[in-house]
Amino acid sequence: MFKKISIFGVGLIGGSFALALKKAGVVDKVIGAGRRMETLERARQLGIIDVASNSVAEAVVDADLILVAAPVAQTEAILASIAPHLQPGTVVTDAGSTKGDVVAAARSALGDKIAQFVPGHPIAGREQNGPEAAIVDLYVGKKAVLAPLPENTEESVERVAAAWKHCGAIIHRLSAEEHDRVFAAVSHLPHLLAYALVDDIARKPHADLLFQYAASGFRDFTRIAGSSPEMWRDISLANQTALLSELDAYMEQLTGLRALLARQDGQAIEAVYANAQRARHNWIKTIEAAEQQNKQGGD
Amino acid sequence: MFKKISIFGVGLIGGSFALALKKAGVVDKVIGAGRRMETLERARQLGIIDVASNSVAEAVVDADLILVAAPVAQTEAILASIAPHLQPGTVVTDAGSTKGDVVAAARSALGDKIAQFVPGHPIAGREQNGPEAAIVDLYVGKKAVLAPLPENTEESVERVAAAWKHCGAIIHRLSAEEHDRVFAAVSHLPHLLAYALVDDIARKPHADLLFQYAASGFRDFTRIAGSSPEMWRDISLANQTALLSELDAYMEQLTGLRALLARQDGQAIEAVYANAQRARHNWIKTIEAAEQQNKQGGD
Repeated sequence: MFKKISIFGVGLIGGSFALALKKAGVVDKVIGAGRRMETLERARQLGIIDVASNSVAEAVVDADLILVAAPVAQTEAILASIAPHLQPGTVVTDAGSTKGDVVAAARSALGDKIAQFVPGHPIAGREQNGPEAAIVDLYVGKKAVLAPLPENTEESVERVAAAWKHCGAIIHRLSAEEHDRVFAAVSHLPHLLAYALVDDIARKPHADLLFQYAASGFRDFTRIAGSSPEMWRDISLANQTALLSELDAYMEQLTGLRALLARQDGQAIEAVYANAQRARHNWIKTIEAAEQQNKQGGD
Repeated sequence: MFKKISIFGVGLIGGSFALALKKAGVVDKVIGAGRRMETLERARQLGIIDVASNSVAEAVVDADLILVAAPVAQTEAILASIAPHLQPGTVVTDAGSTKGDVVAAARSALGDKIAQFVPGHPIAGREQNGPEAAIVDLYVGKKAVLAPLPENTEESVERVAAAWKHCGAIIHRLSAEEHDRVFAAVSHLPHLLAYALVDDIARKPHADLLFQYAASGFRDFTRIAGSSPEMWRDISLANQTALLSELDAYMEQLTGLRALLARQDGQAIEAVYANAQRARHNWIKTIEAAEQQNKQGGD
């Protein structure tokens, strides 16, 4: 049970977190904090938060839990503004898509209060943004990854885990480094690749002709290139090391495939395609089985 | 109005063509031809074809129109089997995903009857295959690309165009070379890239961990890697020249992005991402407007 939860950045992520906790009946008061009172006021009118505040002190004092859910580039500044008001009983977490940079920012901003910060990353999203996009069941059956620091007490980690569990999420633990390597491969690289393809096509002199014949396969492949360029610029930079390493591995893979294609090695090309198809098929089966289990668990 | 249409390969593509023409009431008799009588018999029981035949002569003689809708690698052999029976009044077309190789195969197989062959490519598909997957409205509002040869009479081209129009398709004309360059960019390359990514991840020692965290963005990005490896091996090889050229351009693009990322040039990275997002947004708007128009036209 939480007496006071404060959320810095009441958009899709922070707003859905608030809605889910309210629905679960586990929080007395939710404070929305941020720079734009207009957005906070909308969130309040939507019933997402109880109080809209542009005073960091007011938001931080006596909070059981603080979630930082603003764009990653703002994390350090927000944590630095929180630090002077942070009391020993408060646990702070975040929802950023990268963790190594957030940990560095938190160490720099929070100093000797770093043990109170438990890095987190809920794996959920929608195309829309802002408080209007917040929905109560965004996290149901989704993963919430926690990347605890050596300094964290188990009690602090459990407090963050409990909140996400009340949202319906399934808790996973990874180190910040593991987290960043994993998401570089399965999320950050695919985004870069999709953006690169659409930009490549859009710059060709006959781009209009090309887009005219692009069909549903292209639409799905490039869906993630419809995401916010600012957000993905920040993620790419924040996870630079792991992303460069995944990109290099992928370019090596493409160089290999190019050689197979150049020498018309149909058997080897088919082996790559078939391995991919099989792996994807097994992955989809695993997902579907897990979804089935979640549904049954929820009944 | 067609008295007799013969279809070599009664699967999703050929079967849906037959169903649509029957529904439009523009064909007296549809013959299904192929090597597997079992498949043809199923197609007959499903009401897709009127006659199942494993005699090429029977299928070809007196046909107004012949559609070859078998896997591309079989096109030349099928056309060669058709050639000796082909009468002057018959027009032959195909549904292959590549056109340069099909034209070469047709010239070799049909010899001085080449004027009777009008290359085609309906831009439609589903994940399923076989006659059971055939649906009457597969082509409604979709593009059917014709790539007429210099030898074709306008009357032959129009006969093929009329059939596709009766299926609800919108006719486009491209040269075989244009066709192959366009589809290398918007279809064949994305398939290769998606296969390459999934294979790359599947071969890593921690593949299981990676797949565990792959989410909906990855699912959409790699959907096309669920396609038939044999079919896409054939397409990759058939369109080798154009595909290599698109792959090279893309790898150059990735090399450029890699350099931006290595030197942390956030502004330039954002420019690429934003250009892609904008281009995709405009493309989606165009598609949606066209879909709207088709719907209104259909009312």
